[in-house]
Amino acid sequence: MKEISSPYRYKLLIAYDGTEYGGWQLQPNRRSIQQAVQEALALIAREEIAVTGSGRTDAGVHALGQVAHFSSSRSLDCYKALASLNGLLPKDIRVLEVKSASSQFHARYSAIGKCYYYHLCLERVQLPFTRRYAWHLVEKIDLSALKEAAGYLIGTHDFTSFANEASFGSAAKNPVRELFRLDLIEEEGGLRLEFEGNGFLYKMVRNIVGTLTDVGRGKLPPGAIPEILAAKDRRKAGRAAPPEGLFLAFVTYPKEMD
Amino acid sequence: MKEISSPYRYKLLIAYDGTEYGGWQLQPNRRSIQQAVQEALALIAREEIAVTGSGRTDAGVHALGQVAHFSSSRSLDCYKALASLNGLLPKDIRVLEVKSASSQFHARYSAIGKCYYYHLCLERVQLPFTRRYAWHLVEKIDLSALKEAAGYLIGTHDFTSFANEASFGSAAKNPVRELFRLDLIEEEGGLRLEFEGNGFLYKMVRNIVGTLTDVGRGKLPPGAIPEILAAKDRRKAGRAAPPEGLFLAFVTYPKEMD
Repeated sequence: MKEISSPYRYKLLIAYDGTEYGGWQLQPNRRSIQQAVQEALALIAREEIAVTGSGRTDAGVHALGQVAHFSSSRSLDCYKALASLNGLLPKDIRVLEVKSASSQFHARYSAIGKCYYYHLCLERVQLPFTRRYAWHLVEKIDLSALKEAAGYLIGTHDFTSFANEASFGSAAKNPVRELFRLDLIEEEGGLRLEFEGNGFLYKMVRNIVGTLTDVGRGKLPPGAIPEILAAKDRRKAGRAAPPEGLFLAFVTYPKEMD
Repeated sequence: MKEISSPYRYKLLIAYDGTEYGGWQLQPNRRSIQQAVQEALALIAREEIAVTGSGRTDAGVHALGQVAHFSSSRSLDCYKALASLNGLLPKDIRVLEVKSASSQFHARYSAIGKCYYYHLCLERVQLPFTRRYAWHLVEKIDLSALKEAAGYLIGTHDFTSFANEASFGSAAKNPVRELFRLDLIEEEGGLRLEFEGNGFLYKMVRNIVGTLTDVGRGKLPPGAIPEILAAKDRRKAGRAAPPEGLFLAFVTYPKEMD
């Protein structure tokens, strides 16, 4: 698909605090990250610009390294564009990088991997500074049970039991994904779960976190995880963890596109 | 000064995100932390409660461990009070500890030391997640010059040059303070300056940070610091650093009061 009128393609690396937004994707009734970025780009490029992200993030979900691309009819100075975009955007959205990209580069279709972080606060009282960025669990969590349960999810599986149906109608036809790693990393005041895989179904990370914390609380044994996977039934898994703990950490592309 | 009608004294440890507040101290036109805590305590103790903090923090300044005391006419269950206070308070104010204290304990007058942290963001683009909690310096900072300058401030000095006159009229009569340590600690994305001393004059930490960053930017040589101290003139030092980077980290009391 050659875009004759917009020959210049750019790649954006974007971080955002999703607390005040309805999510990445343009939507009728709430402010979205995509809308804010498109509006800022339109002022800089002096034309309407459509921005394509590597994927949606839901309302309240954050990004350390969302990737997006756009095409413009004019060549842009990347260094100046970065400063101008950050001058125009609100401070809860920051462009970390603007780079020229090949016309083949597509933020979504070229991606070969993604990594999400989910932060759990395990203190008795959650400090105010993490309230937008971590899920506060007040119950005692059995970390070794949680770790054992997480181990069952690594590898290639049909993740139907951990996927919500997408209300926007673009549900994945194939529910098989490979989870390269699921690491539990202790950090100040809690725990960070790192999910890296070749792709994620709708709400998959939050549904996994909700289910793993059910194991950590002793509501489910770790051995329930393989059964839940095998059932291919969303009702067998736990509830979704809330959005505030979730960060899209980074998106991976083939070397020649980076 | 014996308080016959309020024989029960309690010590509070409080953390807050000061972004949305006019500061610790009660004030006519803006919401304060003290007001929020007093209102919550009044509901729990079923009487008007006056809360005394270890000191004021300015608008936009945060606390990891502000200490306050209050007296009540009834005995309180500390464990329940903690949960109830956090249930009543907004999430940007958290009570971390409620403890019985001796009638001699006074959050301000019993304090023998205080520690403040000041966070500097030294990245080209500041991540959205630290925008309320660190001062973003866009210029290149010479850390060794900054460190040398900081060294001149450690010890006992007349800090008049780094003190603003307090608009609330309780200016310290004696401008001599002892700074036990001023440590520069590298952290993700920047630098944390830790100030520990026996007391701090009004705006002293922010004025020191503003002046040290002038050294870091090359506007002042490190050797200017002793001259500024000797001048005892506020106009010789740099401008105050903004409030968002500043945290009251902890307050120290004599062992028998802890």
